[in-house]
Amino acid sequence: MRISLSSLRQIPLLGTVQPTSALCRPVTVFAIPQAQRFAPLRFQLQVRTKFQVHKSTKNPQGKMSATATTLKGQPFDKAVLDSMLKRRMFYTPSFEIYGGVAGLYDYGPPGCALQANIVDQWRKHFVLEEDMMEVDCSVLTPHEVLKTSGHVDKFADWMCKDPKNGDILRADHFVEDVLEARLKGDKEARGQKVEEKEVDEKRKKKKAKGALEAVKLDDAVVKEYEEILAQIDNYNGEQLGELIKKYDLRNPATGVQPTPPVAFNLMFQTSIGPSSNTPGYLRPETAQGQFLNFAKLLEFNMQSMPFASASIGKSYRNEISPRAGLLRVREFLMAEIEHFVDPEGGKKHHRFHEVENVELVLLDRHTQLAGQTNVKKMTIGEAVRTGVVDNETLGYFVARIHLFLKRIGVDLSKVRFRQHMANEMAHYACDCWDAELLTSSGWVECVGCADRSAYDLSVHAKKTGAQLIVRERLDTPKVIEEWDVIIDKKKFGPNFKKDGKVVEAAVLATTQEQREKLAKELSENGKIVLDVPEVASGKAEISKDLLRIEWIKRTENVREYVPNVIEPSFGIGRILYSLIEHNYWTRASEGGDEARGVLSFPPTVAPTKVLIVPLSSNKDFDPQVRKLSQRLRTAGISSRIDASSATIGKRYSRNDELGTPLGITVDFQSLKDGTITLRDRDSTRQVRADEDKIIAAIHELVEGKKVWADIETELPIFESQEVAER
Amino acid sequence: MRISLSSLRQIPLLGTVQPTSALCRPVTVFAIPQAQRFAPLRFQLQVRTKFQVHKSTKNPQGKMSATATTLKGQPFDKAVLDSMLKRRMFYTPSFEIYGGVAGLYDYGPPGCALQANIVDQWRKHFVLEEDMMEVDCSVLTPHEVLKTSGHVDKFADWMCKDPKNGDILRADHFVEDVLEARLKGDKEARGQKVEEKEVDEKRKKKKAKGALEAVKLDDAVVKEYEEILAQIDNYNGEQLGELIKKYDLRNPATGVQPTPPVAFNLMFQTSIGPSSNTPGYLRPETAQGQFLNFAKLLEFNMQSMPFASASIGKSYRNEISPRAGLLRVREFLMAEIEHFVDPEGGKKHHRFHEVENVELVLLDRHTQLAGQTNVKKMTIGEAVRTGVVDNETLGYFVARIHLFLKRIGVDLSKVRFRQHMANEMAHYACDCWDAELLTSSGWVECVGCADRSAYDLSVHAKKTGAQLIVRERLDTPKVIEEWDVIIDKKKFGPNFKKDGKVVEAAVLATTQEQREKLAKELSENGKIVLDVPEVASGKAEISKDLLRIEWIKRTENVREYVPNVIEPSFGIGRILYSLIEHNYWTRASEGGDEARGVLSFPPTVAPTKVLIVPLSSNKDFDPQVRKLSQRLRTAGISSRIDASSATIGKRYSRNDELGTPLGITVDFQSLKDGTITLRDRDSTRQVRADEDKIIAAIHELVEGKKVWADIETELPIFESQEVAER
Repeated sequence: MRISLSSLRQIPLLGTVQPTSALCRPVTVFAIPQAQRFAPLRFQLQVRTKFQVHKSTKNPQGKMSATATTLKGQPFDKAVLDSMLKRRMFYTPSFEIYGGVAGLYDYGPPGCALQANIVDQWRKHFVLEEDMMEVDCSVLTPHEVLKTSGHVDKFADWMCKDPKNGDILRADHFVEDVLEARLKGDKEARGQKVEEKEVDEKRKKKKAKGALEAVKLDDAVVKEYEEILAQIDNYNGEQLGELIKKYDLRNPATGVQPTPPVAFNLMFQTSIGPSSNTPGYLRPETAQGQFLNFAKLLEFNMQSMPFASASIGKSYRNEISPRAGLLRVREFLMAEIEHFVDPEGGKKHHRFHEVENVELVLLDRHTQLAGQTNVKKMTIGEAVRTGVVDNETLGYFVARIHLFLKRIGVDLSKVRFRQHMANEMAHYACDCWDAELLTSSGWVECVGCADRSAYDLSVHAKKTGAQLIVRERLDTPKVIEEWDVIIDKKKFGPNFKKDGKVVEAAVLATTQEQREKLAKELSENGKIVLDVPEVASGKAEISKDLLRIEWIKRTENVREYVPNVIEPSFGIGRILYSLIEHNYWTRASEGGDEARGVLSFPPTVAPTKVLIVPLSSNKDFDPQVRKLSQRLRTAGISSRIDASSATIGKRYSRNDELGTPLGITVDFQSLKDGTITLRDRDSTRQVRADEDKIIAAIHELVEGKKVWADIETELPIFESQEVAER
Repeated sequence: MRISLSSLRQIPLLGTVQPTSALCRPVTVFAIPQAQRFAPLRFQLQVRTKFQVHKSTKNPQGKMSATATTLKGQPFDKAVLDSMLKRRMFYTPSFEIYGGVAGLYDYGPPGCALQANIVDQWRKHFVLEEDMMEVDCSVLTPHEVLKTSGHVDKFADWMCKDPKNGDILRADHFVEDVLEARLKGDKEARGQKVEEKEVDEKRKKKKAKGALEAVKLDDAVVKEYEEILAQIDNYNGEQLGELIKKYDLRNPATGVQPTPPVAFNLMFQTSIGPSSNTPGYLRPETAQGQFLNFAKLLEFNMQSMPFASASIGKSYRNEISPRAGLLRVREFLMAEIEHFVDPEGGKKHHRFHEVENVELVLLDRHTQLAGQTNVKKMTIGEAVRTGVVDNETLGYFVARIHLFLKRIGVDLSKVRFRQHMANEMAHYACDCWDAELLTSSGWVECVGCADRSAYDLSVHAKKTGAQLIVRERLDTPKVIEEWDVIIDKKKFGPNFKKDGKVVEAAVLATTQEQREKLAKELSENGKIVLDVPEVASGKAEISKDLLRIEWIKRTENVREYVPNVIEPSFGIGRILYSLIEHNYWTRASEGGDEARGVLSFPPTVAPTKVLIVPLSSNKDFDPQVRKLSQRLRTAGISSRIDASSATIGKRYSRNDELGTPLGITVDFQSLKDGTITLRDRDSTRQVRADEDKIIAAIHELVEGKKVWADIETELPIFESQEVAER
């Protein structure tokens, strides 16, 4: 069942831009962090560009993670955060007791709840708010569907193999690793300080095998290497192969040059049913199911346009060497919208006025073409008016994506919308903007928003003969006058015998201009002569008893068109991970212990809303604690009780790491007068009031109707327990 | 990648019950609809019995669907319902424009919303209510995990192949089809009326190929056939093969006898990563991910027992010939709970008292063993007290499942809990109850609730060496006095050389009783002699310088145990389909047109809550309609506007089919005084009031806090528009 790799080598490039070999042309783009955007060949090999971690994101100097900061502007320590996320079971490698499988992760209780809350907010923000038609389509997809969509032929990465030990290497990563190692060795030889880049354990290990040699390189070679690294994403398989040969790049593990790169399809293959007749794949995106159901959805929408479908579900990509935690995985949750719109009339959106003043941070393609990365702040209204963003509907969704990210608590100072370069997009796309979030791994594409034109519906319609079109009754019928060809089928076929079909096709393929001439010819000569390369003589002579060519007038009451698709596509796992980084900070503890982690999620997305802590393990607290817990449950608010023997401070601290926004303490005073305290995670400040008031306050905070400052003005501040917390 | 079929033929049976050939023993169970439960061999071949459509469900006379009724007791017409569900896009075959793939379905907007609402209720009822730890684990699963769990070896069905045309046939279905066809031919020959059973189009077609011959059979043969059909689920592959030979059963399509049945593993296989080193499967259930994370979950729960994890996600089974709509599919949504409990102390549950008076309909194993199907009504308290249900925790979940089904609107008169027969359960299970829902296809297992003992954690711990145990500090340390063997490893090994390990194992395997004797022998003779079959002489002589056997006393402060697992496991798709049937009925139209379908879902699970209809397409209604829609959205209530030109009656009727419980009409009166009408789907009665009051009423109905009757007492009845509705 494995695809023969060699059979994939002749994959045609999808786009039309055929760059000269990157090795031969002068490389002028080096100093720019986004350099590698300039000839994104692999994006043309891959049909869909959704959710690439851009290399841009680690800039050549490798300083990105050093400059990353927490929510409160503190230096960001990824190792400390990772250890906290593991300890609190946000996520964990799948099958870890069996050694794990790269690129597969399980979400533990807080990660799972956070994911569910993000999805819930997504549904409210998009599906409910815009009356989208949500569908849930099969993950298992037969070969033919993905052949038509282009994935079978073009959804691939370049890989090579070590002939000695069988190591499979992703070609671009391999070239990058070896050249970086040589540059590092050179720096050492020159006595310069070598900055350690963020690398995961596995990569460290691999590198360690090939002992790093401190070899000084020629200045010219250093420059060449740096230039190659700056545009590593630009090379196709052949070019990567040339680099490997030219610079004699060897696998550090064996000291051997790997085989030339071949394309490796990224879809997981399987077989549906008991016979092998139905080969299939796990879908690489949720979009295809929506396209295939277009006609039914249009019918469901009572033939009314425009409309949008939406889908939330898992997709699968068999990454060659996944290695960026939740940012590049093999199984991931996607949420995708397909908004179908009439291509005529400028793709207006009837709710655009609601968002036109939303201000966005834009990195347009002209800026990138000029080798710059400076962003522009402008309203989406201005962006569409000035043509920076192609049309209203696309602009509407870009703004709505921005508002969604804001709603779930993304740090807006770490968001930008980056426009795809002309040659970075699929050839059929009109315009495409990625929402990129800044993380310790650099700018990460978390949402793509593309205008895919009529491509998808057209290819499936062509393949299956299904009518994936809109029929629109015209208010004023359209009168059409034109030359028409009327063939006398009874005579035509017998006359041309086996050539009948090709001759007929040739006749019907004639333009209006040609027909005008042919009509004249027919009336003058009683016959016409047409070039038909497929028949033996190359020409067909057709006499006037076989066809007529007439100037006719007809009235059209219905307009038919293939809708265009605007596609906002969300990688939920990447958003989730970025959201964690954006909301992470550390709080100094008074006792001078290690700083403690806090995740300041907004209450709406926080995994658990309330922590309930009895002052001690005294059984007297139990009834009130249970009652509180039950009351919160009834109100639909998730809470957890921590009745452990740890100090109140430790228990709160544990839940700060889980991002629990609110805490209730039940103490001896509570037993006397029924009052309880409510603590705010971010400020650690507390108020005290009776149960009803506290629960009402919690409700309003969790629904996002009030913020903590409101609560402090309404309920009495409580201070005496602050000491216990530290 | 395909599994070699022949390699699966020697699969050992999991259970211990080895029935004699069903062909030889007297069959006495024929007249009983549940006959085939009596020797469920295929359940032993299959490790997991979750979600089988029980054959029991179509009784031998095939009359089940004829006796099925709608919610209002009307005769049930499945074809009419199916056509309505298709028209309203509840679900649709996946990839239909490509010809579809059997067993794969897409949910359209109403199906998808219904599913999301059922899942939402499930989360509230189980996860939130019981503080369960929800996890989201990978679907892609490496081979080794499912090898350990037993799925690789035993999760299979029997299939055979037509040597002439390559048809793959599920063996039990094939035998059933051919014998049923012969019985039908016999009936025709005898001039009896042949009742057409519910069969899907595909099966009809297949049957049609082999023209039905009206051949009269001997009375004895008829009886034999009927006996076989009554227990078709009981045969293993070999026995099915014998039936095929004995009765010369031929594929109607070719007239040829198929090959002997072989086991076909039901898991979808794939390969993870670029090399073929990591074969994997799509998980057939969500449970394994929860078991593998047990240690981390226990840690997350601060080492406190009992606790439950939960998971909602897709699972996959490569059915040989899926053919029951949503009831037997290849990709399906599961929701599973793993409740971990201490096996000591009778598996009590601290909230059992909350459910003990819940009355259930039980079909226990003794009743079934006696060939009966009469159910007993009893409270779960009584069932546990009298030992009908094994323990409190299991009973608690059975009751909670019942309450969940009630909550989402299942017809409780069509629910029963059926206990598994002893030989129907996996050998490690203590007790197992299925929630079965009565549909037009008979009783369908929708929820399984099994006590799986310590099986799953034990096998994974044994395979990986991971500590999947609970360590419990003992309040009073336990003093243990016993005979202990202390081996002098330095001398022992060299003395026995290659036999060292087996001799040591034999020594350590001795019982307390043996050790007492051996201690005496050692002190008297200075040596002991042990039977060790693995050594050449069959005996090992061990002198006293190699080991000591002593009476020792030690104190244990910690108790270690492997928790048992109670596993409620929900097939969401089956519940969804059954729920649709349970809530379906038809309403006669006054005009005498065809009866119109209604789906009376409770507002909590209904796909859309409110339909908004302006009286006509007059533009004056637009502002109020838009405002209403926006207000409902803000309140989190899903609504749809139908401003089409159809009559109000038609528009309501369309939404009755979608199960929309409430309808708002905006008419000319609304423009004058702001009042609107609210219509109840089930009674078609209406009230009229101002917007605020109507929206408040909707809120309470949707939250389940009030029912329509309450609203009628509070708001003025409105009648004048009833005419327009018809």
